[in-house]
Amino acid sequence: MPNNTSFQVQLQPIGKRVTATPDVSLFEAARESGIDLTSACGGEGSCGQCRIVLLSGEVTPPNLDEEFILSELELQQGERLACCTFARSDLTVHVPRESLITGQRLQIASDLREIEPDPLVRAYSLKLTPPTLEDIRPDLTRVVDGLAEAYDLQSVFAGTAVSRTLPTILRENDWQVTVFVRDREIVGMVAGEKRPLGFAVDLGTTKIAAYLVDLATGEDLASAGAPNPQIGYGEDVISRLNHVHRNPNGGQVLAQKVRETLNDLLHELAYETNITLDQVVDACIVGNTAMTHLLLQLPVRQLATAPYVAAVGSSLSVAAAELELEMAPGATVYIPPCIGGYVGADHVAMILACDLDLESKTSLGVDIGTNTEIALRKPGAAFLSSASCASGPAFEGAHVSDGMRAASGAIEKVRITESGVDLTTIDDMPAVGLCGSGIVDATAELYRSGLINNRGRFAKENVRVGNGRFGAEFCLVPAANSGSNRDVIITQKDVNEIQLAKGAIHAGLQILLEATDTPAEEVEEVIVAGAFGSFLNIKNAIAMGLFPELPNAQYRQVGNAAVIGAKWMLISREARRRAEKIAHNTNYNELTTYPKFGRKFALGMLFPETINK
Amino acid sequence: MPNNTSFQVQLQPIGKRVTATPDVSLFEAARESGIDLTSACGGEGSCGQCRIVLLSGEVTPPNLDEEFILSELELQQGERLACCTFARSDLTVHVPRESLITGQRLQIASDLREIEPDPLVRAYSLKLTPPTLEDIRPDLTRVVDGLAEAYDLQSVFAGTAVSRTLPTILRENDWQVTVFVRDREIVGMVAGEKRPLGFAVDLGTTKIAAYLVDLATGEDLASAGAPNPQIGYGEDVISRLNHVHRNPNGGQVLAQKVRETLNDLLHELAYETNITLDQVVDACIVGNTAMTHLLLQLPVRQLATAPYVAAVGSSLSVAAAELELEMAPGATVYIPPCIGGYVGADHVAMILACDLDLESKTSLGVDIGTNTEIALRKPGAAFLSSASCASGPAFEGAHVSDGMRAASGAIEKVRITESGVDLTTIDDMPAVGLCGSGIVDATAELYRSGLINNRGRFAKENVRVGNGRFGAEFCLVPAANSGSNRDVIITQKDVNEIQLAKGAIHAGLQILLEATDTPAEEVEEVIVAGAFGSFLNIKNAIAMGLFPELPNAQYRQVGNAAVIGAKWMLISREARRRAEKIAHNTNYNELTTYPKFGRKFALGMLFPETINK
Repeated sequence: MPNNTSFQVQLQPIGKRVTATPDVSLFEAARESGIDLTSACGGEGSCGQCRIVLLSGEVTPPNLDEEFILSELELQQGERLACCTFARSDLTVHVPRESLITGQRLQIASDLREIEPDPLVRAYSLKLTPPTLEDIRPDLTRVVDGLAEAYDLQSVFAGTAVSRTLPTILRENDWQVTVFVRDREIVGMVAGEKRPLGFAVDLGTTKIAAYLVDLATGEDLASAGAPNPQIGYGEDVISRLNHVHRNPNGGQVLAQKVRETLNDLLHELAYETNITLDQVVDACIVGNTAMTHLLLQLPVRQLATAPYVAAVGSSLSVAAAELELEMAPGATVYIPPCIGGYVGADHVAMILACDLDLESKTSLGVDIGTNTEIALRKPGAAFLSSASCASGPAFEGAHVSDGMRAASGAIEKVRITESGVDLTTIDDMPAVGLCGSGIVDATAELYRSGLINNRGRFAKENVRVGNGRFGAEFCLVPAANSGSNRDVIITQKDVNEIQLAKGAIHAGLQILLEATDTPAEEVEEVIVAGAFGSFLNIKNAIAMGLFPELPNAQYRQVGNAAVIGAKWMLISREARRRAEKIAHNTNYNELTTYPKFGRKFALGMLFPETINK
Repeated sequence: MPNNTSFQVQLQPIGKRVTATPDVSLFEAARESGIDLTSACGGEGSCGQCRIVLLSGEVTPPNLDEEFILSELELQQGERLACCTFARSDLTVHVPRESLITGQRLQIASDLREIEPDPLVRAYSLKLTPPTLEDIRPDLTRVVDGLAEAYDLQSVFAGTAVSRTLPTILRENDWQVTVFVRDREIVGMVAGEKRPLGFAVDLGTTKIAAYLVDLATGEDLASAGAPNPQIGYGEDVISRLNHVHRNPNGGQVLAQKVRETLNDLLHELAYETNITLDQVVDACIVGNTAMTHLLLQLPVRQLATAPYVAAVGSSLSVAAAELELEMAPGATVYIPPCIGGYVGADHVAMILACDLDLESKTSLGVDIGTNTEIALRKPGAAFLSSASCASGPAFEGAHVSDGMRAASGAIEKVRITESGVDLTTIDDMPAVGLCGSGIVDATAELYRSGLINNRGRFAKENVRVGNGRFGAEFCLVPAANSGSNRDVIITQKDVNEIQLAKGAIHAGLQILLEATDTPAEEVEEVIVAGAFGSFLNIKNAIAMGLFPELPNAQYRQVGNAAVIGAKWMLISREARRRAEKIAHNTNYNELTTYPKFGRKFALGMLFPETINK
């Protein structure tokens, strides 16, 4: 079969269509389209987790792995392992809920408080009398009158998108409906009695995290995650902005990509909670300034060149329909204000969720991601100060040979002993790679053990340092014990990537302190949010020089605080007011204009000399 | 050349693309796409008015008519007559302004008053300082701050569509711009200093009339007209609603058609006045309830079946972008409220423009079109009463053999004498057809002269009655004297069409008077709006039985008052408030439910017995 053939694979019931070439397994094909199937072995045919059921179409026959793992009955019923199955025609495939990764391990710290819901959209159930020749009120007027009579809501109105849906829904449901109203505007109407739901999203450069939330109670109903599909157009922000600049329809394509993924997440959340998307009546999406500009298809040329100016910095309420999001027809999406060209709404959300704006201590908030944002709160000061550093995605598992996200089989803790390596994996599954906290541990341990020097070079003379395809490397788990049947290694190149990331963050923290005349001793608290979740070994992070020495600081890990902030703004008017205030009262410091930036960065890449080996 | 070939013809500078088959002249091809070229001869190659210039592509060589009319130099320069030229490849053609019919004769009565402009959108010119590394305010913030400083406008914001345009416009125009603001929202921004303009439209079932208006002064800058392109899907309202019901994407297609024509009109108006469409920042579109539903793509099934309920009756402010209208990115379109399923925003506009709601007399307002709406004002009553009759498009020139709109060469007055026919044509051009007032005159005169009887049957024994392809007919102008080289005739079928139209209107007026206990003698004023413009011979209209006998009524002709009402609502907040009140305070009477309707209709089709022949 020629290699350039490709087939359409319809994944049920999530309703996603992916493209598969004959030489790519359905597991890979799904992953390339952002649908991750459960797997401990990484698609090697050994864990048996990525089960699917073939509903129609031709595929390759079961291989030996499948015959070993699946029963004869299961095979007869069309069950297969996605990683062992290759398309030979267009297919329809059922993906059982168990085979779908519905989100990585939840990275929510227990110490972020709950807030009181005060949502913008509320639900009203109505039972109306149908029109007659004596009562020919238009459908919309009938609904508006009904709301006034039953709930004393005055001057309610609706736009065209919602109005289009009224005649059919009213007549098909015997004039018994739930009306969703935002301020005075009807944003949706559904059959029977339904709850109003919301969609909270952290749109990261590398990863997207989303929650489905009950607006009335504030309860999380489900969470889901996906890689940012724009990665194919550049792993970091600048290369994506350049892509848009160089390609006439680049802005449209990148916006389209991320909107499709948001819709996939909506479908996944709806499937998991058994709701319909017309119940999703509000959304809050946070992201760095470039990500929100790309989502909204705002011009980015001026964002990519000095003086790095955003087109829009204030908050926006955008029609979900304008973003082609499959929500209630009148739903809006709230994009919170940003602080500067590279300190976005995600950072505002993080400050909000950590209550950094309300702190009475000198506190640093560090949100580690592909871009790392830092905020400094000084008690008594009217303003917060912020900065942004291009740390790259190493701590998110990218650009590291065996990096991965915090899913089953990821190494999250590492201790290098005299005789070997002690490690802990997520779900205690055989190791397949390293997640962020594992990368920090491994790097700190390599340095502590003298396997790398303070410049990050491997001690090649040490017998424990191997020589692999990419030069010096250290094997954490040999193939025989791993979940992927391959060695889990950390290479010289990996160490260098990690040094670039920590150098940027270290420099950013130091410059922000200097720029605000804040001695290191004055910092009482460091709030760590982002990539690591709540699982970072802070001692190791200091040992490897990710954070400068702050002798009096207490560290507090809060996981993905940005998505929690997004949720707060989704369910509470007061949270939105606070977000506006935070953005207004935070000064942005452009790091690269500081004369010492280059030197601080270079120094930050080194490993600290004073470490208790 | 095979007949099923077709070519694309690009008309410059109006930017319209039309399709031409090899056997259809460019004149016809343009007309089929709603672009009417000037012509006195009706496309017969004799008047020389439809000049175009071929810019690229292959066409048939000049014929004898063209060689006679055009000079050798003109032919060398590519000048042609559109009616004599046939495409032989895709073409680009220049259409000189003189060759474009930029609107039929303006049908505005002088006695409709002017109102004081108080527009929703205002223009503010700004000169801003560009960003620097010390001043990295986002572009939108810079504009908002500029408006606050220079004009004390507070809390101004913008949506995404407008925000998308800011970075380029600001940088390309040295930060010197005009900002258009509606309430607190920026709806557009243009280079330099520009006036804010508006688009007022009467969206008729058969014809669309539009004005470009200076919002600040209320001045009309230009007018334009076009056939409603939905005619191809049904000439009357009901057949269009049925088309939508029967075709899954019918609603979309019909909406698309009319939106395209509105864009063509916008381009035509912009070309004529040398403005750019980003200056057009507001619009008001009136039409009957079905036309506005079709424009907005609202469901119409419930409008086509008893009890004939509108989806939306209240006014709507719709984003111009949602209707795909090429206006300023944040422009909105105001659709005024309607009164009932068949008494629409156009009637509200007519009542407004005639000040019928403010009248201290017993007044009837009659808006004659494909649907004819009637409103009755009784002094002292809190309410107006209204009704709608399906009169058909005969008085608009459709369904009548030689019917045409009120353009050059249309017969507008007819007197049948003993020896012949006296007639007046528009612009004194050779007659090519009959417009509405000519149709009324001709019918009344045929009856007065005994050429038709009181049932509308031609007196076949009369030597002046001819026998044509469609039976009995009367020749108004023989081919030798006409502008079309064909007889201008009125046939038995034409008379029947006219009877159906007048029967419906006559019955509607009578029933509305009876339903409101209004004796005919009480009516002091009849305001006649719509198809006829201001050129109807009222005596003849009464003689033929279009209006019942109202012994004490003064008649007042106001032309297309609906488009004037649309203009008022475009330029004035107060006019919008009055429109809301009119819709709220007008009772709708469904004629077809009156037991006497059928009989009144049949009687109305007869010609009055008591007439001073």
